[in-house]
Amino acid sequence: MISDLNTSTRFLLGPGPSMVPPRVLRAMASPLVGHLDPEFLRVMEDEQTLLRLVFQTKNELTLAVPGTGTSGMEAALCNFIEPGDAVLVAIMGFFGERLAEIAKRYGAQVDRLERPWGEVFDPAEIEAALKARKYKLLALVHAETSTGALQTGIPEIASAAHEHGSLLVLDTVTSLGGLPVEIDRWGVDVAYSAAQKSLSCPPGLAPITVNEHARQALQQRKTPVGSYYLDLIGLEKYWGEPHAYHHTAPISLHYALREGLRIVEEEGLEQRFARHRAFAEMLWEGLENLDLPLLVPAAQRLTTLSTPQIPATVDDALVRRRLLDEYNIEIAAGFGPLKGKVWRIGLMGHSSRREHVRLLLGALEDILMNG
Amino acid sequence: MISDLNTSTRFLLGPGPSMVPPRVLRAMASPLVGHLDPEFLRVMEDEQTLLRLVFQTKNELTLAVPGTGTSGMEAALCNFIEPGDAVLVAIMGFFGERLAEIAKRYGAQVDRLERPWGEVFDPAEIEAALKARKYKLLALVHAETSTGALQTGIPEIASAAHEHGSLLVLDTVTSLGGLPVEIDRWGVDVAYSAAQKSLSCPPGLAPITVNEHARQALQQRKTPVGSYYLDLIGLEKYWGEPHAYHHTAPISLHYALREGLRIVEEEGLEQRFARHRAFAEMLWEGLENLDLPLLVPAAQRLTTLSTPQIPATVDDALVRRRLLDEYNIEIAAGFGPLKGKVWRIGLMGHSSRREHVRLLLGALEDILMNG
Repeated sequence: MISDLNTSTRFLLGPGPSMVPPRVLRAMASPLVGHLDPEFLRVMEDEQTLLRLVFQTKNELTLAVPGTGTSGMEAALCNFIEPGDAVLVAIMGFFGERLAEIAKRYGAQVDRLERPWGEVFDPAEIEAALKARKYKLLALVHAETSTGALQTGIPEIASAAHEHGSLLVLDTVTSLGGLPVEIDRWGVDVAYSAAQKSLSCPPGLAPITVNEHARQALQQRKTPVGSYYLDLIGLEKYWGEPHAYHHTAPISLHYALREGLRIVEEEGLEQRFARHRAFAEMLWEGLENLDLPLLVPAAQRLTTLSTPQIPATVDDALVRRRLLDEYNIEIAAGFGPLKGKVWRIGLMGHSSRREHVRLLLGALEDILMNG
Repeated sequence: MISDLNTSTRFLLGPGPSMVPPRVLRAMASPLVGHLDPEFLRVMEDEQTLLRLVFQTKNELTLAVPGTGTSGMEAALCNFIEPGDAVLVAIMGFFGERLAEIAKRYGAQVDRLERPWGEVFDPAEIEAALKARKYKLLALVHAETSTGALQTGIPEIASAAHEHGSLLVLDTVTSLGGLPVEIDRWGVDVAYSAAQKSLSCPPGLAPITVNEHARQALQQRKTPVGSYYLDLIGLEKYWGEPHAYHHTAPISLHYALREGLRIVEEEGLEQRFARHRAFAEMLWEGLENLDLPLLVPAAQRLTTLSTPQIPATVDDALVRRRLLDEYNIEIAAGFGPLKGKVWRIGLMGHSSRREHVRLLLGALEDILMNG
């Protein structure tokens, strides 16, 4: 027989999932109604209203894809790519790589523009590439979870994309709800995110928003969308009229997301961004005092995810294991070229709190200074 | 401001989600650990052990796809189809149609074998079609949620598929956990299901199992799987060694599924099937007494989902609305050619209880007999 579930109480200070507020856990545990129950349709309507608020958009086609962040990424690409389409991907880390990989699977001719992991693009560099060849779509990451770098200049990049006839698809997985994401003002055509980062909900839903321009492109496709499950036409017909069956929505996760978004609304976006900044700065100062300098220069640094460099004398895996086993703190390892070189410390949503920063710095001090 | 979540307490007697036991809701509301936490990897291992039990299989590649049942259907097809492959789909309802639609999206040449909705296939008919043309894959539904019909003769169909060099993909969405599903003994190559039917967990995970024969076919693909999110090679590398990041697992839903599967184990499969049968028979007798004869003959009838025919004098939508508004009971409408002709009444998992049958029959009697 398999025993009772009995997991430890972790401080989740990695790249996600972040810590879920008790209110959200309670909402999630409500008894279920059906996925076509009029009461559930109202739950989804509320979610859409609140998602528009955090995306800072009026886009009608704003909903949550029934899967984790990666399903959002795949939906944002496969709905707008037809086999043979030219796609430009600006890559500065792991999730840029994943964008390129998924675009290829849907038959795109992918051109890659690359910066070393930890750096970001000068918008002029992207514009030059858009000028050199006609692309159906430009995809890039706003907040690179693998490096801790923030791509600035999104409005300029969006203008360049539109000037050259491309749609802009933006990954806001690690920014939405923790850093400003202004879909309408910036002119982003398609953006997606994930529930378990700065929105502090359990993983399993991927918010997405699509403007009218991209929606027209979707409606004008010559071929059906490659994936049925992620087909936005089907998803939209379920979320809106005629509320036609497409999939059985993950009811409990919607209860959770609705509650998590209510918390965002109550706190207010500006206050929430300021809180993320304040505790990130507290963390950065503490890390520097521990001789753990940050990989990314301050101007391009995410406040939601920080990447201190690991000194050569320190055993990466041992420190992470001791944090988990002795302090119940989760932080994450670096990926790819940053493996063994940085840690990834997330202060997202409910995890972004003074007491968590103080605890982590204290624990790191114990382990690094006192062995 | 959006108000507190305040949904009604429904009796979920439709085609899913079924009612979720309080133990499962409580497990789901546990604080989260990370998706690569050693404790979470053990949760997934437990789930795999329990899924093998309900699928009655030793298949190593047994896991839960991070999406609803439709994502399981798509995963079961897209991992085994390459563009141009010939695929045979045996269609006797809505979900057979969906199998054909998804196979087409992944580039298959789809041949359709059809029976009117409510009927099932004679295995000899399927064998004749397998003989007439070489197919990479045969897909069909074991328990048709749109009609209430059970496809019998799966072992014969599996033998025929193998004799003619085809893989058998079986939809067990509405059978797994409520009706016998014997993957190994029957010789099914790939089967998938959904958490929210007879397993009585919240929707959002799709159990899948793949035997060695199909796994080899997967490894021998010439092209990458069309979907990245549903790629079983990536999913398997996360569930098993090296536990490589593929997506951020929906932690809370895994807590729920593990608990729901423990309940299945505690009850015992045979007892569980017998319970589903006993309350289905009680329902059928009651429906017949109300002059609501069943669409499907007894020998092919699902015990998990029943489809009484609606008399011409009865207003389909009005009865369902009154059941919901006055009694908090959800049952579902018919689909496609059965729209307005049948209701779909699910007694799945925790919903399959004497008190629910009694309540539903009483409510129907009130509405139909006493206006």
